[in-house]
Amino acid sequence: MPTAEYPGKSELLPTPKSEFLQRLEQRWERGNFVCIGLDSDYSQIPQIFREGYSIDDAIFRFNQEIIDATAEYACAFKPNTAFYEPHGEDGLRALRGTISYIKANYPDITVILDAKRGDIGNTNTGYVKTAFDELGADAVTVHPYLGREAMKPFLDRKDKGIIVLARTSNPGAGEFQDLLVDGVQLYQIIAGHVAESWNENGNCAVVVGATYPKELSEVRAIVGDMPILIPGIGAQGGEVESSVMAGKDSRGWGMIVNSSRGIIFAKEGAGQAAARLNDEINQYR
Amino acid sequence: MPTAEYPGKSELLPTPKSEFLQRLEQRWERGNFVCIGLDSDYSQIPQIFREGYSIDDAIFRFNQEIIDATAEYACAFKPNTAFYEPHGEDGLRALRGTISYIKANYPDITVILDAKRGDIGNTNTGYVKTAFDELGADAVTVHPYLGREAMKPFLDRKDKGIIVLARTSNPGAGEFQDLLVDGVQLYQIIAGHVAESWNENGNCAVVVGATYPKELSEVRAIVGDMPILIPGIGAQGGEVESSVMAGKDSRGWGMIVNSSRGIIFAKEGAGQAAARLNDEINQYR
Repeated sequence: MPTAEYPGKSELLPTPKSEFLQRLEQRWERGNFVCIGLDSDYSQIPQIFREGYSIDDAIFRFNQEIIDATAEYACAFKPNTAFYEPHGEDGLRALRGTISYIKANYPDITVILDAKRGDIGNTNTGYVKTAFDELGADAVTVHPYLGREAMKPFLDRKDKGIIVLARTSNPGAGEFQDLLVDGVQLYQIIAGHVAESWNENGNCAVVVGATYPKELSEVRAIVGDMPILIPGIGAQGGEVESSVMAGKDSRGWGMIVNSSRGIIFAKEGAGQAAARLNDEINQYR
Repeated sequence: MPTAEYPGKSELLPTPKSEFLQRLEQRWERGNFVCIGLDSDYSQIPQIFREGYSIDDAIFRFNQEIIDATAEYACAFKPNTAFYEPHGEDGLRALRGTISYIKANYPDITVILDAKRGDIGNTNTGYVKTAFDELGADAVTVHPYLGREAMKPFLDRKDKGIIVLARTSNPGAGEFQDLLVDGVQLYQIIAGHVAESWNENGNCAVVVGATYPKELSEVRAIVGDMPILIPGIGAQGGEVESSVMAGKDSRGWGMIVNSSRGIIFAKEGAGQAAARLNDEINQYR
């Protein structure tokens, strides 16, 4: 498919350095690029954490062990709400407890609530309160589909990170994301809008799957040094070398490389798996 | 802007009649087209429901009164998760209690969980469990951006309704939704995919805002008699006559016309407001 070059890449304005960006840069400076995806599916948590404990305690204790084992290598932790919500109040307590534990013990590590929210403006204020005030996350993932005007309640939170889906890691991501608009693919248009007009507060980032290194390098060219959350390493088939070569920014930074199942359920142990992934990232950047 | 006609409208296949569709048709047959949006913002609930009650009891009691007053005119109730989640466990109990109350007392009225979810396939199973099993809703709203492959866990629930965002009601909806792909706007492409390939189980619907009657009639032409959830009447500025003229299907049915603030906080009372809106819809369909 012939694609044109995204036309707006020279238009990026200097943006203020948000708390979200500062916190990430502190970890990148230490060589920490791994994001630990806390997709803590209760049915897959080892028996030892579950036996004799309530669901919320079991999930929390499991996460606590993962967090302590991996914090040394992490730039971010990313609990996905879809693994907590099916457990009702128990899931909510486990999620809030997990975020509190990270903020209390590792305050320099970014907590990304992977919630993929997005509604009209008036309604988004509820999601903003939930993610940042009720749960205490530092950043949240959102859908771009309703546009900047609707997402303003998120974007106005200068102290927090807003991470917008551009090119997702799933096999069928291209159904709409690859559609050509004047010869440019939709995910590039979205990445361009986020970099050019959504990011006034310097608090935006975009998501591009490790499973699509070509698309990742195209987005990197569009967004300059903006952070990119890169899911899909490991279980989903994304490779480290190609992801890092495509995803690093002009400083060799800019990457939040997520692994979930590949770390939290690793046979070698989560700490080992996180260390190894982080080493590999550093080898190529 | 010159737009081409959506090319695929003759390709719709006959689909099975899902429980979701059957339940809606029973209400449409009675002349019920109103959807009551339970956007029950705690800070706006009258003092009489709040004083002396916990947050969950206050929201639940308020909803109970709205539900009893409006059920006679409703085809659906639609709680939006963004108004419940900021209250943590209290919000969750109020939401689950509200849905249980509707199912116990008005089992023929569809409960739409307006959650606007959407993640990769493996992860969506968590949202499916939450919406349908943990909370007990009959239908859920979703973002289209990740494509059909990712949304399969939703689409596979033959007994439930999957309502996909096409053209949203907010002023800035056009930023991405109106982009032209080979001369056809993105929201039309999405509505077409939903009608043609997502709807194998006859359990899909789409969202188009009442604030955009032209777009609504274009989507109606694309999706045939598929249900359309039409938010944006009242507080957001959508008008009944133009919405009904544009939104009705070949039988004068097919519309789930939502009003939230305009009904639940109506000075004349929610029952009066719902009756009046429903009468107005019936006048034009």
